[in-house]
Amino acid sequence: MNVSKRPSEEWLDEVFNDEIRLGFKIGDRLYSAESSYQSIEIVETKSHGRLLLNDGKTMVSERDEFIYHEMMAHVPLFLHKNAKRVLVIGGGDGGTVREVLRHQEVRECWLVEIDPLVIESCQKYLPLTAQCLSDPRVKVRCEDGVEFVKKCPTTFDLILIDSTDPIGPAAPLFGDEFYRNVRRCLTKGGIVVAQAESPFYQLEMQKKLTEILASHFTKVHLYNFTNMTYPGGLWSFGFASDHYSPLRDLEDSRVAQSQLDFKWYSPEVHRASFALPAFQKKMLFQTLSPLEE
Amino acid sequence: MNVSKRPSEEWLDEVFNDEIRLGFKIGDRLYSAESSYQSIEIVETKSHGRLLLNDGKTMVSERDEFIYHEMMAHVPLFLHKNAKRVLVIGGGDGGTVREVLRHQEVRECWLVEIDPLVIESCQKYLPLTAQCLSDPRVKVRCEDGVEFVKKCPTTFDLILIDSTDPIGPAAPLFGDEFYRNVRRCLTKGGIVVAQAESPFYQLEMQKKLTEILASHFTKVHLYNFTNMTYPGGLWSFGFASDHYSPLRDLEDSRVAQSQLDFKWYSPEVHRASFALPAFQKKMLFQTLSPLEE
Repeated sequence: MNVSKRPSEEWLDEVFNDEIRLGFKIGDRLYSAESSYQSIEIVETKSHGRLLLNDGKTMVSERDEFIYHEMMAHVPLFLHKNAKRVLVIGGGDGGTVREVLRHQEVRECWLVEIDPLVIESCQKYLPLTAQCLSDPRVKVRCEDGVEFVKKCPTTFDLILIDSTDPIGPAAPLFGDEFYRNVRRCLTKGGIVVAQAESPFYQLEMQKKLTEILASHFTKVHLYNFTNMTYPGGLWSFGFASDHYSPLRDLEDSRVAQSQLDFKWYSPEVHRASFALPAFQKKMLFQTLSPLEE
Repeated sequence: MNVSKRPSEEWLDEVFNDEIRLGFKIGDRLYSAESSYQSIEIVETKSHGRLLLNDGKTMVSERDEFIYHEMMAHVPLFLHKNAKRVLVIGGGDGGTVREVLRHQEVRECWLVEIDPLVIESCQKYLPLTAQCLSDPRVKVRCEDGVEFVKKCPTTFDLILIDSTDPIGPAAPLFGDEFYRNVRRCLTKGGIVVAQAESPFYQLEMQKKLTEILASHFTKVHLYNFTNMTYPGGLWSFGFASDHYSPLRDLEDSRVAQSQLDFKWYSPEVHRASFALPAFQKKMLFQTLSPLEE
């Protein structure tokens, strides 16, 4: 994160690969801390509301967080149709949990976030995403997701891996052993969704992740969405299940019956998100499952 | 366009709305000129190959130009199936023309670009997009597209409006009179595709454009694609026709038979691109036509 001061303005830039940068004109710096795991910063921007940065990388902006969080939560929830117990690993900002809780069938949503300072800072400065964490259906555990799934004695219908990039504290969340344990913690026929990086910048990582998923699950897919504040603008989630097929098992009528109002998600957007660009599909062809209609 | 020099590095930033900026680490500045219409600059970047900027705004990068150009050309060409005469207005970089020419049914592709310096500079420094302009099927006219369609005595099966933003030289390309003339220059049942700005930043402009299109054509749609170098990462094309319906008239078998190889486009991506995010669909609901399957 480089900050350059100019008269009466300040740009905060996220530099990516030392080759591109996305900068925001910022106002107040609301919060800045070094936790045991990472630096955490929350700032006001002119264009995107409040911005959460971990280690100088944009995690969440108030302006477009709805896209990531709607797509992570509603795609698996509308496929499963009866997810009573949901586990979110990472995602201490609370945005994914907020969307999960909109589904009445959800009885418990566990949030396992390694870094308590992320939760504290977001509860104070990002209520848009974090205020849901005081909901009685939410169980917050500040511990390592890798250790949690190793020891967890119960199972979940959905496991959503809302991680940062596969460097630093989140690196093991992209590993084989982690997914072996995730599978063990999943009810038979449950669904796993995982943050899966950029099709433009991390296609090799997507290949590795889908190979790991394919070694533990019979149905493995990626689906894409836009992120205004991530490099390249296009981002992916991994999808894995032994039972649910992302197009075949979507019932449009259930989405309508839910009476939920979305800013990004719809049944059409759900289906469209699994239509990968040709270059991405070619690269991942061997590990992705065919899309059953 | 702000340029800040630092020891052994140089960032070139496109500043948008004085609130966000996208910066590229650059090498050689290959070309810089002021034409009668705009400033034109072509630079080497570390991450995106060569970059063309008009008035400081990124038009084309070698790394991701395929997305814009494939989506502008192949969506209407695979729907029409027999477009013999194609008109491209703007698009002096040549990328849209290059994709159009890959279709064997195309006998003539006219390029009407107001600024000869864009064509010259791209022919010299952006052969990836501009080298096709010497193809014998291409007719280049350096004149104002608005005047061209006012006087043009012939018709075209497809008209592709590959314009810059609706400020400066391209402003009239977003107007009602222009589209009245475009319709006159279109063969009965032809298709118009037009650069339609950002769903995030120019939704009002999209509304205005689709209203104009709807006053001249019976079928009006928007479709979206990713652009790594445009603000927000998501961008739209307008689609208008009296005859073709963008989902109903797509025949997957024709795409396969063409034996063309794409980096972005596929029949699935074609269909998916018309699934607009909920907020965009809500905003444009009154002017967009229903999608016939």
